[in-house]
Amino acid sequence: MGEMRVPDQKIIEGPAGYVLEDVPHLTDYIPDLPTFPNPLQDNPAYSVVKQYFVNQDDTVPQKIVVQKTSPRGTHFRRAGPRQRVYFESEDVHACIVTCGGLCPGLNTVIREIGGYKGFYARNTIPLTPKAVNDIHKRGGTVLGTSRGGHDTIKIVDSIEDRGINQVYIIGGDGTQKGASAIFQEVRRRGLQVAVVGIPKTIDNDIAVIDKSFGFDTAVEEAQRAINAAHVEAESAENGIGMVKLMGRYSGFIAMYATLASRDVDCCLIPESPFYLEGNGGLLEYIEKRIKENGHIVIVVAEGAGQELVAESMKQAEHDASGNKLLYDVGLWLSQKIKDHFTRKQNLVINLKYIDPTYMIRAIPSIASDNVYCTLLAHSAIHGAMAGYTGFTVGLVNGRHTYIPFYRVTESRNKVVITDRMWARLLSSTNQPSFLCSKVVEEAKTANGTPLKVN
Amino acid sequence: MGEMRVPDQKIIEGPAGYVLEDVPHLTDYIPDLPTFPNPLQDNPAYSVVKQYFVNQDDTVPQKIVVQKTSPRGTHFRRAGPRQRVYFESEDVHACIVTCGGLCPGLNTVIREIGGYKGFYARNTIPLTPKAVNDIHKRGGTVLGTSRGGHDTIKIVDSIEDRGINQVYIIGGDGTQKGASAIFQEVRRRGLQVAVVGIPKTIDNDIAVIDKSFGFDTAVEEAQRAINAAHVEAESAENGIGMVKLMGRYSGFIAMYATLASRDVDCCLIPESPFYLEGNGGLLEYIEKRIKENGHIVIVVAEGAGQELVAESMKQAEHDASGNKLLYDVGLWLSQKIKDHFTRKQNLVINLKYIDPTYMIRAIPSIASDNVYCTLLAHSAIHGAMAGYTGFTVGLVNGRHTYIPFYRVTESRNKVVITDRMWARLLSSTNQPSFLCSKVVEEAKTANGTPLKVN
Amino acid sequence: MGEMRVPDQKIIEGPAGYVLEDVPHLTDYIPDLPTFPNPLQDNPAYSVVKQYFVNQDDTVPQKIVVQKTSPRGTHFRRAGPRQRVYFESEDVHACIVTCGGLCPGLNTVIREIGGYKGFYARNTIPLTPKAVNDIHKRGGTVLGTSRGGHDTIKIVDSIEDRGINQVYIIGGDGTQKGASAIFQEVRRRGLQVAVVGIPKTIDNDIAVIDKSFGFDTAVEEAQRAINAAHVEAESAENGIGMVKLMGRYSGFIAMYATLASRDVDCCLIPESPFYLEGNGGLLEYIEKRIKENGHIVIVVAEGAGQELVAESMKQAEHDASGNKLLYDVGLWLSQKIKDHFTRKQNLVINLKYIDPTYMIRAIPSIASDNVYCTLLAHSAIHGAMAGYTGFTVGLVNGRHTYIPFYRVTESRNKVVITDRMWARLLSSTNQPSFLCSKVVEEAKTANGTPLKVN
Amino acid sequence: MGEMRVPDQKIIEGPAGYVLEDVPHLTDYIPDLPTFPNPLQDNPAYSVVKQYFVNQDDTVPQKIVVQKTSPRGTHFRRAGPRQRVYFESEDVHACIVTCGGLCPGLNTVIREIGGYKGFYARNTIPLTPKAVNDIHKRGGTVLGTSRGGHDTIKIVDSIEDRGINQVYIIGGDGTQKGASAIFQEVRRRGLQVAVVGIPKTIDNDIAVIDKSFGFDTAVEEAQRAINAAHVEAESAENGIGMVKLMGRYSGFIAMYATLASRDVDCCLIPESPFYLEGNGGLLEYIEKRIKENGHIVIVVAEGAGQELVAESMKQAEHDASGNKLLYDVGLWLSQKIKDHFTRKQNLVINLKYIDPTYMIRAIPSIASDNVYCTLLAHSAIHGAMAGYTGFTVGLVNGRHTYIPFYRVTESRNKVVITDRMWARLLSSTNQPSFLCSKVVEEAKTANGTPLKVN
Repeated sequence: MGEMRVPDQKIIEGPAGYVLEDVPHLTDYIPDLPTFPNPLQDNPAYSVVKQYFVNQDDTVPQKIVVQKTSPRGTHFRRAGPRQRVYFESEDVHACIVTCGGLCPGLNTVIREIGGYKGFYARNTIPLTPKAVNDIHKRGGTVLGTSRGGHDTIKIVDSIEDRGINQVYIIGGDGTQKGASAIFQEVRRRGLQVAVVGIPKTIDNDIAVIDKSFGFDTAVEEAQRAINAAHVEAESAENGIGMVKLMGRYSGFIAMYATLASRDVDCCLIPESPFYLEGNGGLLEYIEKRIKENGHIVIVVAEGAGQELVAESMKQAEHDASGNKLLYDVGLWLSQKIKDHFTRKQNLVINLKYIDPTYMIRAIPSIASDNVYCTLLAHSAIHGAMAGYTGFTVGLVNGRHTYIPFYRVTESRNKVVITDRMWARLLSSTNQPSFLCSKVVEEAKTANGTPLKVN
Repeated sequence: MGEMRVPDQKIIEGPAGYVLEDVPHLTDYIPDLPTFPNPLQDNPAYSVVKQYFVNQDDTVPQKIVVQKTSPRGTHFRRAGPRQRVYFESEDVHACIVTCGGLCPGLNTVIREIGGYKGFYARNTIPLTPKAVNDIHKRGGTVLGTSRGGHDTIKIVDSIEDRGINQVYIIGGDGTQKGASAIFQEVRRRGLQVAVVGIPKTIDNDIAVIDKSFGFDTAVEEAQRAINAAHVEAESAENGIGMVKLMGRYSGFIAMYATLASRDVDCCLIPESPFYLEGNGGLLEYIEKRIKENGHIVIVVAEGAGQELVAESMKQAEHDASGNKLLYDVGLWLSQKIKDHFTRKQNLVINLKYIDPTYMIRAIPSIASDNVYCTLLAHSAIHGAMAGYTGFTVGLVNGRHTYIPFYRVTESRNKVVITDRMWARLLSSTNQPSFLCSKVVEEAKTANGTPLKVN
Repeated sequence: MGEMRVPDQKIIEGPAGYVLEDVPHLTDYIPDLPTFPNPLQDNPAYSVVKQYFVNQDDTVPQKIVVQKTSPRGTHFRRAGPRQRVYFESEDVHACIVTCGGLCPGLNTVIREIGGYKGFYARNTIPLTPKAVNDIHKRGGTVLGTSRGGHDTIKIVDSIEDRGINQVYIIGGDGTQKGASAIFQEVRRRGLQVAVVGIPKTIDNDIAVIDKSFGFDTAVEEAQRAINAAHVEAESAENGIGMVKLMGRYSGFIAMYATLASRDVDCCLIPESPFYLEGNGGLLEYIEKRIKENGHIVIVVAEGAGQELVAESMKQAEHDASGNKLLYDVGLWLSQKIKDHFTRKQNLVINLKYIDPTYMIRAIPSIASDNVYCTLLAHSAIHGAMAGYTGFTVGLVNGRHTYIPFYRVTESRNKVVITDRMWARLLSSTNQPSFLCSKVVEEAKTANGTPLKVN
Repeated sequence: MGEMRVPDQKIIEGPAGYVLEDVPHLTDYIPDLPTFPNPLQDNPAYSVVKQYFVNQDDTVPQKIVVQKTSPRGTHFRRAGPRQRVYFESEDVHACIVTCGGLCPGLNTVIREIGGYKGFYARNTIPLTPKAVNDIHKRGGTVLGTSRGGHDTIKIVDSIEDRGINQVYIIGGDGTQKGASAIFQEVRRRGLQVAVVGIPKTIDNDIAVIDKSFGFDTAVEEAQRAINAAHVEAESAENGIGMVKLMGRYSGFIAMYATLASRDVDCCLIPESPFYLEGNGGLLEYIEKRIKENGHIVIVVAEGAGQELVAESMKQAEHDASGNKLLYDVGLWLSQKIKDHFTRKQNLVINLKYIDPTYMIRAIPSIASDNVYCTLLAHSAIHGAMAGYTGFTVGLVNGRHTYIPFYRVTESRNKVVITDRMWARLLSSTNQPSFLCSKVVEEAKTANGTPLKVN
């Protein structure tokens, strides 16, 4: 029941082990801020909605597989409109920033923030409702996006100079860390500026949240490449179809695309180490499958087998964002397989390698992602209007919530290879686990966060 | 902590208001059944999976928007494989039944039950893994489907005669009621037969569960029809594009398709009554929109405005399944609108009516539905093997659970028109609420179950 | 070798039976018009193109299946840019008109005429290159379209008043007749106005030309409906899937969609009469197919069986364009089939009727239609600039040509049911010919124009 | 009027310059072969078809842009069924061979040859009508395909051993040469074996014929990659989207995809040399476009700029089929562009490279290609049954014809860069011609064969 505050943490406890990891609020550092009635209540669309405003105390538990006497555990604040807001409509000056790679749904998020029907804000940004009317049907982002470092001080200077009081930052892991730094600086200066993060990662590797937007679209589109690889492999003598999918550190796209397709014989992801040569190795498995079925389809996440590639290369580079520049595992693996079977005279293989990455990133989002992006954007706006700041908006167990920045940046969501989902994949592909006993032990003691499906 | 049993109910209580609405188990009426180790543990795919078997006591709460001191409320038993099973692999004789209309994903469910890699069951049904290998890429159902009544006694006779001990019944509301009756009869006879329901309704109107399979696919495909209606309406002078979508009693497809598309100016659903003539009526709104924008796009769920249609017709019929045969509201409404504007000399309209129902039902499921169907089928099998019976498998707050039949059949999921989701739709289309004060009051006191998004 | 002129005809003869059916030219009635060098020759894109300008005497034969001693027969003037033009770039004032129903590719044609890079014309119409830049990716028409009569005198008055000197008229049969009347009036007044028709008919029923634009797109999209009908039919007991496709007077879309799909068991078109009852009738065939295969897929062109429908209805109406308003044969036939099998107690059928018309019309054109529309528009512009008028642009044996209006309006292209293409269809579906001997005789003596494939 | 025979040529002349380049016939080397009535005449589908059988003397001219006094020129024999055939249905033993890369439509051709409803042949090959029923909906080839040399003697031995009397060979340039060798050997041995080539090349580079099957499908699918490249380029700062398309020696896919898309700023094909550095070079153009528009989309055919790549590499390899192994111009060009702009500090570019080759090759054919493949297969069968041999079946000016092998193998169809189609492309992209005066002169004197559109 007590309240404790560690740096950046805002913990509220309750009975039966209830813990609320709350997000910052403008009134934490600016006392006596005036509030205003939520303008939504005057909107005809909402006139009959009794359940419209969120109860101030609504929260959502993080862990919902429970037993009769489980402690209630961590909760997050529920997203949604509040009865009173901390900005008057005519005073809202919002800006939207998108960073990093393309992701299906970006334009839908932008559309909704920018074109939120003028309910809350009027004439604040060039993204008028009319201007953004159709952008959700296009892939990409109308705002443009860039990689590279940023200077927190300069950014906050610019926010002050331009009189912006709501900042929406759409981006991945690194971007959310940047957003956190901006929030800290804003708070240090005591500005009435809400800083809101909207997590974007086509890889679905952001911690805590159920699923990142664009993920279902990416898995859907990945099916096209897998189908093509399957057709190419089946049509050729000893055909090998290889598809590289996104996933630098997490193999979710590869895993779900494999499970959805059922044409894949082997799925390689960063979380599950593998080896090429020898007993139980990948090359042996490929040879076995080809002899049995005449062909094999392999899906490889871009971050899979990096230690093998690195060993081959003995060198390291970095790209502009500070991410380790990954060697192209697809090209590397294709070459290794070709070399291997060239040496073995008895098997002339036909390998076809497909890298659909940019074709996947650039498509418009499917309908379910469209609706998801719409709700995500609305949740972000509702939070900022209600005075919350320094938070990421995210889906937790199917409910939109406000999550402190540190929770989504402190770790990365990964496929847990000792969990049932990966077991399902293994049983669907019949591929070996490639695991020597040492790796298994490590995996068993790792504390990864499983994706929340079953 | 006490245990109470009312007919067909199996309630387990715990501290802080914890309630488990449990499902029946074979041992409820057949004591001393032998158990066997789960054969999955010998499967290589599962050899490294430490989190594979579900804890016997795992449950999932139904209500997860909670406050610090909320009672814990109703829980359902978590789905998944158990350490011990009540059927030996070689003794499993399963059958699968599909009833009612087509729904994207049906073949994926069938594939997974029928082709579950022989882990649990061998040689039981003609749906061998090989036979069902590719069916998930096709729309429809390889089993065929039919409407019409059934005779519980005869069905259970047949189950006994054919030595079937696991029955999987895929179908909607009425089918789940039938499954419940079959379960009762099976229990009355004391048979060791697991009866499992898998809810199927493209309308997404099954109570308790988050979302029914095929729903996302249906909303996705509905976009094509809406796009076409939009193009037709925009290209003609005073163009009206009308699309009828599925939804006899619930307007979820219409609502989500409208939210995803953003091209719709008016969405009519069964839950929200409307009227044609006079002030605030539909015809007035159509005229206003056409004068402002030159065109209008209308989405109408098949069950919308039935009382208006019925009044026009003054007659009633029923189809073979006992469902009220709905008059085609799309054709009826098209005629009404044409008649109205023909009488008004000042506005020559061009109405284009699209009914994409069968094109939507018949497509293969999208990737996310494919994965969903796969997990749903696995959950069903795990439950039956573990001796549970008389249950429906369903997603609750993103987790697969076992739900007693009576909970999914006692009510129907509906769009709550006093909830935020419908308010979002109204603000997106700008359509009037068509509600006179009386209707609003009724709606406000109705206790519908909102779909669990945000 | 002589030259003869009958009203509206302009015939040029040559050796070996060569006949050129030429199109009018502005100089036919305005002597001494000045000419100018074609501005294309100064364009950098064309600087290396030696084969760019069309030889004045180039023509294309209509009949190209020939024998050693065949007369050379009718030719049309080849389309393309000429060395000298009759309009100066800065004096071109063009207008574009679209009439009738939507057709995939309309926006591509408009784009190309309107945005022809300013080569020939500058600042003449609001359709600047920039404005039309992306419209070819959308279905429909950005210009809007309307049905209904027109007053030639008023139109030519308006052309004069607004100083327009190039008129591009996109539309079907009736529209081309209207264009012809406009041309006659323009010539009567002695105006230097080029009147150019661009044939548009999704039904592909315009005489002389190989194929109308949008036809391939329509056949492509029709596959979706046929697939859905096939899935619905296969999944139900005694399933009947029926798809109505466009084709008021000609069954080309139905025939090609049937040939491309191979899932169709019966294709009904306006050109091939059929009957329902009795020996060799449609109902008997349906029953036979269902008994053999369990299901049947029927494609019916909208104009098929009109005499049967009319007999049922005993009434007649006309729509605004003067086309006979067709009764909906799909709905009518569905009802007849249901009635028939309801009476027959031994066969409970499941009929699913799909009308994808507006979904087909409204989609963007496929790539091959896009290129076709581009060339069609260019040919039209080249012809007008070169002083030709009173013509339709059209593809004849794969070559773009200028065809006199009267040739494309005097008859309608129809499926010749005594030709090999229809025989291929019959052998692909195995449907009966439904022909009594009388009909066969009539068909054999009819002089229809077969579509030019093989 | 006379008849002349040079090796492998069979020329028949007529009045007014008429020349028929005829194909071989079994009776050329096996006199007194018996004939039989065509079994098609007993088929009910054909019973009312009066125009069914092709007149023995029907031919099709190669050149149809003619002038009043043009000589009639080269003709080919029209394809189609003849009144009498040289094989009895029950004696037909056919085999089908597919060689080389995948091409959309392959399965449709196989389906039609293999499943030609048993009209001509019964029980001859395992490709029964039932077995091939659905294969046209799949990409790839059910027969498998392989590259590499072949031994004519062994092949003809095998044909003899297995009693095959009709050989259908589907493949490109090299394969048709192989087919020609097989025909020569078959004739040398005096066998009653018809050898028929069906040209397959996704690149559309086979001489004489209008268009190869699968080409329209390839251009259609290429749009997806171009769209993605456009979105990626537009969304990034100084974005460069590069798409590599098929086309080893001919740039038809690249050219048509560019014309259909209209999003491409630069199209590079093998026929049009280009250079990187300096005034008027590619790098200068890229910089100019990016400065003007912020982004650029480049399409490059796989065979473009090979001399530049080779110069970079100073090495040469060959793949198994004897084709020069092309360096990947897409990867090479991407690197060159990155290197260039890395050196220039003032422009940080974002290049996204897409290679959709295998995704294009593997898709099922679109409807128009499906119909085309159907007719192509029928023409092949009709020809073999009628005793013709040593020919390729092909579309000439929209008509199916029989063409002597030497005519389709003696040269390759190429984009003529001094022709109007390429000029249209240049004017659509606004790219420079990259041509120095020397190249222009060479191009002007080259005698390429333009594709027959307009």
